[in-house]
Amino acid sequence: MQDIYLDNGATTFPKPESVYRAVDHFNREVGGSPGRSGHERALEAGREVLRAREALAALLGVADASRIIFTKNATEALNMVIRSVLKPGTHAIITSLEHNAVWRPLEALAERNDVAYDIVQCEGDGSLDLVRMHEALRPNTSLIACIHASNVTGNLLPIEEVAKIACERSIAVLVDAAQTAGRVELRPEELGIQYLAFTGHKELFGPQGTGGLFIAPGTDIDPLHFGGTGSLSESPKQPEFLPDRCESGTTNGPGLAGLRAGIEFILKTGVTQIRRHEEELTTRLIEGLLAMDGLSVYGPHDWEKRVGIVSFNLDGLASPELASLLNERYHIAVRAGLHCAPLAHKTIGTLEEGTLRASFSYFNTNEDVDNLLQALREAKKC
Amino acid sequence: MQDIYLDNGATTFPKPESVYRAVDHFNREVGGSPGRSGHERALEAGREVLRAREALAALLGVADASRIIFTKNATEALNMVIRSVLKPGTHAIITSLEHNAVWRPLEALAERNDVAYDIVQCEGDGSLDLVRMHEALRPNTSLIACIHASNVTGNLLPIEEVAKIACERSIAVLVDAAQTAGRVELRPEELGIQYLAFTGHKELFGPQGTGGLFIAPGTDIDPLHFGGTGSLSESPKQPEFLPDRCESGTTNGPGLAGLRAGIEFILKTGVTQIRRHEEELTTRLIEGLLAMDGLSVYGPHDWEKRVGIVSFNLDGLASPELASLLNERYHIAVRAGLHCAPLAHKTIGTLEEGTLRASFSYFNTNEDVDNLLQALREAKKC
Repeated sequence: MQDIYLDNGATTFPKPESVYRAVDHFNREVGGSPGRSGHERALEAGREVLRAREALAALLGVADASRIIFTKNATEALNMVIRSVLKPGTHAIITSLEHNAVWRPLEALAERNDVAYDIVQCEGDGSLDLVRMHEALRPNTSLIACIHASNVTGNLLPIEEVAKIACERSIAVLVDAAQTAGRVELRPEELGIQYLAFTGHKELFGPQGTGGLFIAPGTDIDPLHFGGTGSLSESPKQPEFLPDRCESGTTNGPGLAGLRAGIEFILKTGVTQIRRHEEELTTRLIEGLLAMDGLSVYGPHDWEKRVGIVSFNLDGLASPELASLLNERYHIAVRAGLHCAPLAHKTIGTLEEGTLRASFSYFNTNEDVDNLLQALREAKKC
Repeated sequence: MQDIYLDNGATTFPKPESVYRAVDHFNREVGGSPGRSGHERALEAGREVLRAREALAALLGVADASRIIFTKNATEALNMVIRSVLKPGTHAIITSLEHNAVWRPLEALAERNDVAYDIVQCEGDGSLDLVRMHEALRPNTSLIACIHASNVTGNLLPIEEVAKIACERSIAVLVDAAQTAGRVELRPEELGIQYLAFTGHKELFGPQGTGGLFIAPGTDIDPLHFGGTGSLSESPKQPEFLPDRCESGTTNGPGLAGLRAGIEFILKTGVTQIRRHEEELTTRLIEGLLAMDGLSVYGPHDWEKRVGIVSFNLDGLASPELASLLNERYHIAVRAGLHCAPLAHKTIGTLEEGTLRASFSYFNTNEDVDNLLQALREAKKC
C-alpha cells in the first residue's frame, strides 16, 4: 500500500513485530477475560494486563502501577479527569494548543454545569508565556490542562513549570501526553503532575483501542463508567481502589498485550535513542523545508523545544490538495487540515487553511525525509 | 492450555480463524487511523470500521448503519444511555436480573443527581412477571432497562413486551444484549427498542475492546465522551450526527476489523443454526445435571426460555472450590461466584454462595458437555 508513512501523529505505523505477535498470541492462545474468572485462560489474561501496567509504570517512573488505569484512548482519560475535577462553580485553564479532546468536554461542561474556563494564548510559534498562565488564575481555578507536545506544531510545553504553578495553589494539573509518552523522558510523579493522560497507539507503539491515565498518589478520581469490575461484585457501589475503580467492563486484553510489547520495545531501545533518531529526522526535514521558497514552517525550529511533528504549508496550494498529491503521486502519507485541534491552528494563524503535517516515529528514515522533500520540490513546480 | 472452555459468558474462545486474521491484517497491513486522514491507510482503516458497522446492521436488521455506534464494551454503552436519558427528577425501572453494568451507573446517578429507580423482582426461576413491571411505573419514569438474557441464569426476558409497555407511555427502553447479540434472532428496530447495547467479544466473536449501541431513528443520545471526531473539527461542539457524535478519539480499528469477521461468520453460519447447536448442548447439560443427585440447577429448563448459559451448584461444595477443582484436575474452564450480577443471584437465592456457570458458544461440542458431567460426577464423590 503506502510506501512512506509520515502520519505517526495520528497513529504509528508500522509497530514493532513483537506488537503484532503479542496481539495475535493473546487472541489465539490466551483468550480469557482479564480479572473475571479463576481458570488458566482468565488468569493469564489478567497477567497480560498486569504486565502492560507494570511496563508503563517502568517507562513513566511510577512507583505504584495500580495508579495507572487503562481506557480505550486518551480522549476517554481526558474526559474522565475533566468531569471528575470540575464541579459546578469551578474554573479551568487550558492552553491555546489543546486538542478537541480537552476543549470539547470542557465546552460541554461549561454549557451545562456552571463551569468556566479560560484559554491561555500561546505565541505564534506555539511557545507558552507562563506570565499569561499566572494572569489567568482565579480563586476558583480547580484544573489546569496542558498538552505536553502539540499535535499540530510539535511544540513541547513547559509542563514542569505549569505543574509548579498549579501545585503552589493546590490546583490539579492534567497533562495530555498523547504525543509524548514513549518519545520523551517523562516522569509525572517526580514533576508533581496529578493526572497524565496517554494513548497507546501513537508513540507507545500499541494497537488502537488502548490508552489510559496516571493518577498521582493521594489524588482522587471519579469514574466515568460504572459497572462490573470483577471485584466487590455484591455491592452496587464502584470499588474505591484503583485500578478497578476506573476500569468497568471487560478490558481490551489483546490490545493491552500489544501495548506491553510496544512499551518493552521502547524500554529496550531507550527513549534517549528514540529521541536522538527523531531529532535527526526532524532537523533534516525542517532544514530542507526552510531551504525552499514559498513555504511556511510552523512551530519552533530548535529541536530542544519540540518533537518530531512538523506542520507546514506550500503557498498557494491548500493542504488537502497537497496531501492528495503526495498520496497519489508519491505514495507519501501525511495529514492535512485541522488535526482536531482548531485552537492550535488559530494560534499559529492557520485556522482557515489548516496545515500539512508530517509526523515521525522511530521507524522512519532519512530517506523518507528526502523523498518528502523531493516530492515537495516537484509539487511546487506544478 | 485449557482443554475445555466453558466460560463463553465472560468472553468467547476460540474465535473463528477469520477473526484472528482480520485483526492481524489490520495491524500489519492497514495500520491507519480510521476517519482521520486522506491517505490510503487511513481510508482503508475507515472502510474497515464501516464494514463492521454494516455487518452489524445486517445482523440486527438495522436500516441505517450510522445508528450503530462503537464503544469499548457494553458497559460504556449502557452508561452512556443511563446518563443521557435520566435527567434529575426522573425515575427508572430495571429488572432484578440486571448486571452491575446497569445497577452501578444507576446507583451512582441516584446518589448524586436526584434520580430514583425501582427493581422489578423476577421469579425464583428468573422469569419476569410483566404485571410487576406495570406496577412499578411512575408518572416520571423515563427509562426501563431490561437485560435480554441473564448472564447468570440464561433466562431470556420478554423484551418485546417490555418495549410495548415502554412505548405506550413514551418511556425509553434500553436492552442489554451482551449475552444475546449473535446467538438469538434480534431485530431492535422492529421491536420498538430505542437503545440496544451489545458487546463484541462474547457471542459476536469479536476481540475484547469492542462493543456498542444501537440508537433507534428519532431517538436522541448525549455523548459520554467529547473530543476529536475527525469531523467539524473547527467547532468546540460535538457533531450532532451519528456515529461521530458518540465516537470521540481514535476508535479500535483492529478490534472492529476482527468484530466484522466475527459477525460475518455468524451471518454465514446463520443464527438459527447457532441457536440449534446451543440447544443441543444446553439440553444435554441440563438433562445430565438434573439426573444427578445433590445438585441445584437454576433458570428455566425449557430451551425456548433461555440461552446456553447454565448456573448450578453442587450441594456442600462452594462454587469457587468446585471451579478450581474442574480447572486443575479436568482442565475445564467455568466461572464461579457472582458474575458481576448480585441482583440476579439474590433473585435465585444464591447471593451468599454464588453459582458455577457453564456457558457455551458455537464452538463447543457434545463431548465438552459429557466431560463436564463426568467431572462433576467424580467431584461429587470427593
